[in-house]
Amino acid sequence: MGRPGTAALLPAAPGPETGPSRWTAAEARARIRAGLAAPTAGTAAGFTQANMVSVPADWAYDMLLFCQRNPKPCPVLDVTDAGSWRTVLADAADLRTDLPRYRVWEHGEIVAEPTDVLAHWRGDLVTFLLGCSFTFEWALLAAGVPLRHVEQGRNVPMYVTDRQCRSAGRLSGPMVVSMRPVPAGRLTAAVTRSAMMPSVHGDPVHIGDPAALGIADLARPDFGDPVDAEPGDVPVFWACGVTPQAALTASRPPFALTHAPGRMFVTDTRDEQYRVA
Amino acid sequence: MGRPGTAALLPAAPGPETGPSRWTAAEARARIRAGLAAPTAGTAAGFTQANMVSVPADWAYDMLLFCQRNPKPCPVLDVTDAGSWRTVLADAADLRTDLPRYRVWEHGEIVAEPTDVLAHWRGDLVTFLLGCSFTFEWALLAAGVPLRHVEQGRNVPMYVTDRQCRSAGRLSGPMVVSMRPVPAGRLTAAVTRSAMMPSVHGDPVHIGDPAALGIADLARPDFGDPVDAEPGDVPVFWACGVTPQAALTASRPPFALTHAPGRMFVTDTRDEQYRVA
Repeated sequence: MGRPGTAALLPAAPGPETGPSRWTAAEARARIRAGLAAPTAGTAAGFTQANMVSVPADWAYDMLLFCQRNPKPCPVLDVTDAGSWRTVLADAADLRTDLPRYRVWEHGEIVAEPTDVLAHWRGDLVTFLLGCSFTFEWALLAAGVPLRHVEQGRNVPMYVTDRQCRSAGRLSGPMVVSMRPVPAGRLTAAVTRSAMMPSVHGDPVHIGDPAALGIADLARPDFGDPVDAEPGDVPVFWACGVTPQAALTASRPPFALTHAPGRMFVTDTRDEQYRVA
Repeated sequence: MGRPGTAALLPAAPGPETGPSRWTAAEARARIRAGLAAPTAGTAAGFTQANMVSVPADWAYDMLLFCQRNPKPCPVLDVTDAGSWRTVLADAADLRTDLPRYRVWEHGEIVAEPTDVLAHWRGDLVTFLLGCSFTFEWALLAAGVPLRHVEQGRNVPMYVTDRQCRSAGRLSGPMVVSMRPVPAGRLTAAVTRSAMMPSVHGDPVHIGDPAALGIADLARPDFGDPVDAEPGDVPVFWACGVTPQAALTASRPPFALTHAPGRMFVTDTRDEQYRVA
């Protein structure tokens, strides 16, 4: 059921026995390093996934402060020392090669979308790994909340909202959200299960009306793929770790690297570590 | 039942009708600005309290990174712009005068403990306000967890542990914890209620054995007052926002300002804002 041009890059929807959902994080990273460029929703069940943004050290304080001042879209899971491609979230991983696809940014413009950034790496880059809502999707599934984007073999849809983040130094920009259609009878489960994991965006920022976030048309996401709602589904919006990319667009730092939306860093950390109770 | 030299500075234990627990945050700050220098446990029920640490801008990235890497003891609620004594947590407050007592640090040594820092303020100071466990004490009380330090009119006891924080740049040091004796039958309530508030330290870091944290003698806290346990009480340890002060001692930055332990900044923010569900 995937859309042309997207389905071929996607892992199969997770099943109980085989497929990407059963991979360990290390297996997922090995396949990605070898060339798999698919979105990572549904991959490596139970392992935390992370957004990535790398900025020159000169911009690191602004970015860290931006994240602190906007913890809902930008929950920081790790910050590297300048130049390092290692993270405490996965000891053996290489942040230059182990994400499915990257974006290279110059003055707020995307100049390349490579599958590794070995040729773009710089010794002054500080890398931020931010929580991702894919982390709580397993908890939603376990609570009977269907994941329409995974069922339909698509990347999760993401939208730039009209809510401005609190600025920090030279960085400002709007909040980005991800959207999942949730059956009305499962809304409480979706809210409470995600709320238990504040380090990966926590509870929704809005339920119901896209216009309340300034979103004109759910069928035209700014990132990812449109997803079909089933009858009785209600759109639920969670803050999204693509928000720093909207800040790069708005604030135009001279250089940055990020992941490509929906193509995350799969860590060795277990989702349960980010559940408060 | 207060100890000599402490009781006179303490507000009365909170009662249902009158006393410091019934003050608004603005009333508490006005009394503090006028000279009240008491610990703030039990003050202004329902208003979030915060630890404070101000460092020169040159040290701000190290401090922010230290907090990010140690979110359990150092949950950041706000970071000011350099030189500002204003915070989004309480629009009308002045961070130079509105805490009961401060500490002035030079090269890791406390050189003064004044009741305001007007004479010590600098234009390059970046101020960090960190979550405080006093915030969830109201939730504990509501769940039937007695607060022995408040009952006994004492400051909460705090201890330097043998657990090292993850270092950040030039900053390193051990984790500090606060301790509350909890009746064995109320441990579940104490754990679950505090876990719901991760921005103010969340669930305990240890329950039961002080030696597991390298604490030799509960009767000799490093900060605050010793508190008497009742028969059947179990010592419960929460990460504490005095931890940055242990890092100042260990890392010796040239200058810093902090609150005095237990004498917090009372914000206008409601505790409920920090409850995840």
